[in-house]
Amino acid sequence: MEPQDLEILRQFVKNELGSENQQLDTLSEKPLPLYEAFGATGLANWWLPEESGGRGFSLEDGVEIVNELAYGDAGVAFTLLVSILGSSVVQLYGSDDLKARFLAPMAAGGRFCAALGSEREAGSELNRIETVAARSGNDLVLTGEKFFATNADFADFLLVIAKAAEDPDEYLAVVVPRDAPGIEIVKRWDVIGLRASHTYAVRLDNCRVPAANRLPGSGLRLLETGLNASRTLIAATAIGVARRIRDHCMTYAKGKRFRGGTLLDSPVLAQKLGQMEMQIDVMKSHCRQAAREYDEIMAGPDAAKVFSRKGTLKSALTAKVFCGQAGWSIASAGSEMFGGLGYTDELPVGKLLRDMRYVSIVEGGDDVLRELLFSRYVVPVSRRA
Amino acid sequence: MEPQDLEILRQFVKNELGSENQQLDTLSEKPLPLYEAFGATGLANWWLPEESGGRGFSLEDGVEIVNELAYGDAGVAFTLLVSILGSSVVQLYGSDDLKARFLAPMAAGGRFCAALGSEREAGSELNRIETVAARSGNDLVLTGEKFFATNADFADFLLVIAKAAEDPDEYLAVVVPRDAPGIEIVKRWDVIGLRASHTYAVRLDNCRVPAANRLPGSGLRLLETGLNASRTLIAATAIGVARRIRDHCMTYAKGKRFRGGTLLDSPVLAQKLGQMEMQIDVMKSHCRQAAREYDEIMAGPDAAKVFSRKGTLKSALTAKVFCGQAGWSIASAGSEMFGGLGYTDELPVGKLLRDMRYVSIVEGGDDVLRELLFSRYVVPVSRRA
Amino acid sequence: MEPQDLEILRQFVKNELGSENQQLDTLSEKPLPLYEAFGATGLANWWLPEESGGRGFSLEDGVEIVNELAYGDAGVAFTLLVSILGSSVVQLYGSDDLKARFLAPMAAGGRFCAALGSEREAGSELNRIETVAARSGNDLVLTGEKFFATNADFADFLLVIAKAAEDPDEYLAVVVPRDAPGIEIVKRWDVIGLRASHTYAVRLDNCRVPAANRLPGSGLRLLETGLNASRTLIAATAIGVARRIRDHCMTYAKGKRFRGGTLLDSPVLAQKLGQMEMQIDVMKSHCRQAAREYDEIMAGPDAAKVFSRKGTLKSALTAKVFCGQAGWSIASAGSEMFGGLGYTDELPVGKLLRDMRYVSIVEGGDDVLRELLFSRYVVPVSRRA
Amino acid sequence: MEPQDLEILRQFVKNELGSENQQLDTLSEKPLPLYEAFGATGLANWWLPEESGGRGFSLEDGVEIVNELAYGDAGVAFTLLVSILGSSVVQLYGSDDLKARFLAPMAAGGRFCAALGSEREAGSELNRIETVAARSGNDLVLTGEKFFATNADFADFLLVIAKAAEDPDEYLAVVVPRDAPGIEIVKRWDVIGLRASHTYAVRLDNCRVPAANRLPGSGLRLLETGLNASRTLIAATAIGVARRIRDHCMTYAKGKRFRGGTLLDSPVLAQKLGQMEMQIDVMKSHCRQAAREYDEIMAGPDAAKVFSRKGTLKSALTAKVFCGQAGWSIASAGSEMFGGLGYTDELPVGKLLRDMRYVSIVEGGDDVLRELLFSRYVVPVSRRA
Repeated sequence: MEPQDLEILRQFVKNELGSENQQLDTLSEKPLPLYEAFGATGLANWWLPEESGGRGFSLEDGVEIVNELAYGDAGVAFTLLVSILGSSVVQLYGSDDLKARFLAPMAAGGRFCAALGSEREAGSELNRIETVAARSGNDLVLTGEKFFATNADFADFLLVIAKAAEDPDEYLAVVVPRDAPGIEIVKRWDVIGLRASHTYAVRLDNCRVPAANRLPGSGLRLLETGLNASRTLIAATAIGVARRIRDHCMTYAKGKRFRGGTLLDSPVLAQKLGQMEMQIDVMKSHCRQAAREYDEIMAGPDAAKVFSRKGTLKSALTAKVFCGQAGWSIASAGSEMFGGLGYTDELPVGKLLRDMRYVSIVEGGDDVLRELLFSRYVVPVSRRA
Repeated sequence: MEPQDLEILRQFVKNELGSENQQLDTLSEKPLPLYEAFGATGLANWWLPEESGGRGFSLEDGVEIVNELAYGDAGVAFTLLVSILGSSVVQLYGSDDLKARFLAPMAAGGRFCAALGSEREAGSELNRIETVAARSGNDLVLTGEKFFATNADFADFLLVIAKAAEDPDEYLAVVVPRDAPGIEIVKRWDVIGLRASHTYAVRLDNCRVPAANRLPGSGLRLLETGLNASRTLIAATAIGVARRIRDHCMTYAKGKRFRGGTLLDSPVLAQKLGQMEMQIDVMKSHCRQAAREYDEIMAGPDAAKVFSRKGTLKSALTAKVFCGQAGWSIASAGSEMFGGLGYTDELPVGKLLRDMRYVSIVEGGDDVLRELLFSRYVVPVSRRA
Repeated sequence: MEPQDLEILRQFVKNELGSENQQLDTLSEKPLPLYEAFGATGLANWWLPEESGGRGFSLEDGVEIVNELAYGDAGVAFTLLVSILGSSVVQLYGSDDLKARFLAPMAAGGRFCAALGSEREAGSELNRIETVAARSGNDLVLTGEKFFATNADFADFLLVIAKAAEDPDEYLAVVVPRDAPGIEIVKRWDVIGLRASHTYAVRLDNCRVPAANRLPGSGLRLLETGLNASRTLIAATAIGVARRIRDHCMTYAKGKRFRGGTLLDSPVLAQKLGQMEMQIDVMKSHCRQAAREYDEIMAGPDAAKVFSRKGTLKSALTAKVFCGQAGWSIASAGSEMFGGLGYTDELPVGKLLRDMRYVSIVEGGDDVLRELLFSRYVVPVSRRA
Repeated sequence: MEPQDLEILRQFVKNELGSENQQLDTLSEKPLPLYEAFGATGLANWWLPEESGGRGFSLEDGVEIVNELAYGDAGVAFTLLVSILGSSVVQLYGSDDLKARFLAPMAAGGRFCAALGSEREAGSELNRIETVAARSGNDLVLTGEKFFATNADFADFLLVIAKAAEDPDEYLAVVVPRDAPGIEIVKRWDVIGLRASHTYAVRLDNCRVPAANRLPGSGLRLLETGLNASRTLIAATAIGVARRIRDHCMTYAKGKRFRGGTLLDSPVLAQKLGQMEMQIDVMKSHCRQAAREYDEIMAGPDAAKVFSRKGTLKSALTAKVFCGQAGWSIASAGSEMFGGLGYTDELPVGKLLRDMRYVSIVEGGDDVLRELLFSRYVVPVSRRA
């Protein structure tokens, strides 16, 4: 990423997300025009490889971009980052044909894709997935209902994780064009934060796609691989939201009379803001470190194989868990800093608190990720930090 | 309080607040009919003394009542409890005439009163109050703008804290009928939780009342006195909300398949719920203890004098700070227990989280109360616990 | 307890434990003379019933006594309180003969008893106990090795929990005189805090006692019953240690120059001490409440039956878990308040930190108690708080 | 640092510190022979520049070295790292002559230096320093008493911070040979952890050194500069101690029978260890990042100027505060994981808990560092993270 890209990004955040854009907190319908505005910056899907016509930015760049976007609005940031899950799986494991048909348009048009993994009974335990993919000639026929699928309605394609009809222990990852027949948006979820984003329940009813749309390898493992990038970027949204909270606290303190001066002179405030700044600094270090580890693998000759072998990276797990916790600590402290005003819509801290909450919830709660950390990275002695 | 009162109360909670009454979270206009329904139970303003025609329940009873109400809805609980602030000041310091004119109708009609203390620049530092009360013949004329006044619009009377026009170091507490001329509701606050309650900004413009409506003593001290009861009851709302969260977790866990059985079998869940139960048990002990200390003073012959001397009771401060913290810990943990569903409006935990937040904010943030605790109860060696 | 008893107690604490008695932190050999000094106050084993010649103080009195003792030294407090475990079981379930032979001398002489429950492999899972009690004519013969037994060496009698040789599912509680043959003190534990107390590993080698020394009922259940009192009093030690830490902080702050004045003027210090005071106040409320619940059962006509039915009381569990956590929070904060000096033996805070640690560990860690809370008091809906 | 250096280091840790070397926790007299053994590895004072005959390792290498050493013993690690404070100041600001006389021997002989900053009344407020440096011909004469000076007795030289006799607002940093006349070791501190290290109170009584031994610039600023390296390495000790605690937990869990298997199968244990691993991973990322920022400045052409301008680096502050907090969280959790055994000297966790405590205390408590963070890096908008 070049400095001018960062400048363009900051202008976008300032112009489109800056002036306490109330609409962003309203669950308004359909992709907001601002996603098109973002496309106009040339930064949409910044991670797509140059061979697909993308910008080819690293995940470390992505951390910085998401940090900036989330400073403006975490829902917008999430919307713009989450396509990395599906697209990175296609990039790593897709045939040249699939990449040409699905990644190139995403790069050219700033379009979206969606990952359809979880089901009502298959959240933390993905092996409970009941969506079935049945072979039918040269096609695969998909049937089932997916629970949480962000961006699905306006995506170009869906990456669907399904169980093989023929083998209950086999899971597939299949690229499904959004306009394939048999795809029904059941509903859009009313979420407590990130309300500029759009998450849907989706039904697949005898949805038929060519068998060649299946990506090679275990669908669950491919999903794990894709989650490395998105979890790291979700972690990075916490940085942006935390910085916004800190800056609001400082702005408020500067204008708030307190004893002989302003609240800025309060040693108690200094302690709280010092603690926040510490936490923000550590979140940044760690997200960048997690991204660098990912980038290193991606830059290697065997990225697909390495990811297949490793599955979930430790650093992606620890980044999401840590930033979720540190972010919540900051948001909790921040929400107590404005007196009664902080409990009203006159200040944005209530929204920021609701937004922050998602970091510890989406794409795996702390319990699930800690258990993964334990079994994958603590039990095997050689993998311990 | 008799067992049948508790039974009536539980019926009210079940019938009026039980079925996930969505309206309660909507900032709908004007006192909801359910406040009238509560009046019909005969429990409204349960604390008003029998000599004013009230039920004369103790604050310890109040803790139990508020716990039950808040299990249903914290906004309703807050609406129904917060009149204790103003009315207890009138009860302690008001003339017989004032009590007859203002408390008796409250008892008879289940009506409300409101305390008008804080101003935009006078939150944690009430000595910044700029509302002025000027003597004019046998009247007092009040002018100023009050920031947060719950129930003010539909209250019978307002207890206004103002600065004496004649003496910048003197603060008055004045009983002002709601229908006095010169009272303007500036706006209703849009709050992030407790959305069944109604909190207003109120302007007083040359609002004239008889000088006899002034209560004897320092207005700031009288306000402190009144806050003892309301802070203890605000603390008690945390118990109800916490119990509701716990019960939702248990209901969810019972129905959620997990490994070979349900989530109820998870040792990790057991740890979290065990911790919650511990915190709830401690909140109950402490709120009851705080209430008993208050009741003991109230039952004594010199309640008004004792409160004037003591001002804020230690136990009221510690109850609010503790329940705010323990409640937030429970709500934070609870909000992570439902996977992605907990981030949607399909479950009530998002609302419960927003509701819980108020305990640490309203009627004094933790910083303010801890500083009071320190200066009043730690520095003087004999007052330490 | 009469006011003069409290006065005598405070004198004892001041004279014997007050002047930073270094010996108390040294694991010195054998019951220190100060336990005899405590006997001279007439307060030793204050809980023993009047019919056994004891003082018959309530557990609520015990909370106050332990609070005072632990202010002086937690190891001394633990030594003096922990006999309540064994003696209360004998009091509830022992025959008149056992009471006459074992409780009356304890009351008269200020002597000790010890509970021998845990084994190396049977800590949190007491059903792993391997000490065996075999019937031999009119005797029971005990063999096994017990892990942690406080006061065992200088106790009058040991309450031993053993498995029936005849039935692997049956556990016995047996009163064993300390001078019975076959009892060997394996070692005294070197503990990290509470170093004025004496905890031993004890071996029983064909230790023969009359079968009548067995108490009726399940040994595990009887142990649970006895733990109600001792856990509540262990919780209360946290109050005393916390008060001592607070007072040290205040003394230090008063003498420490800081900016224009002393550290006492620091708003940051005020926040920390305000938080501590809040936590101390809540610990007191809850320990007293837990004690009252226990006292109420003890005062009833069917105490033994009620305890057999209830086993572990919720309030005893929550008191120990809460005070362990709140106490650790206070000790952790306290240990950071003295700069580098707090890391040296020039100040007592290092010792107080080590002492405080035991509250969350002894007689059941938080995990174990939270799981008990969950299974006994959260799963059954009617027992929830 | 080359891989073989790391291998040598690990052998040293294993051989000298590995077998639960009890002596390390005993405050034994004088530099233990193991410091000489460390010298024999060629790694002593690894940071000294090659031009002084040193190894010239980066601070990032130092983080790794200290992590390994502290896994063995934090007191040893602290002893071996803390000379970086004084020597890096000499390296940056010393004349060629001073470097030749003091750094070269340190490099050659694996010797120590000590920083003499704090005084009894000058801990968090260094401007209260009362040690005076008076000009006397071509000499400086130093008089005063320094509070905490690690390694001072066996150091080659002391870096003394003193007030100018001529100007109460001027502070000097002076290189004082240990064998200069007038230096008296007042006492060795008895510390609660890190007991293999040696910290002294030191008196300077008309201690005369050439005026050329004064380093140019404000003594307080130079001290700040030196603290950047040592604080980062102190933070890194928390990583080593935390890893040791984690590994002990795992070893214990593997051998501890629990339900049908071992404690390793417990989902509750998995949560705790997963959380620890997360915290360790984040500590590593952040210490390395902090070290890289330092190294980048050191590698630049104007290191001395840049440090003079910047003084304390944000990342050094945040590393120490974060690792102190995360480390304490790990040690607190760890100390509760072994049942009663964890409260005895049979397991090392008690020592590790005491050792960990120092991270939040030595070279500035969290309050002091948070206030610095606030005033230097939050108030100036451009310096915020």
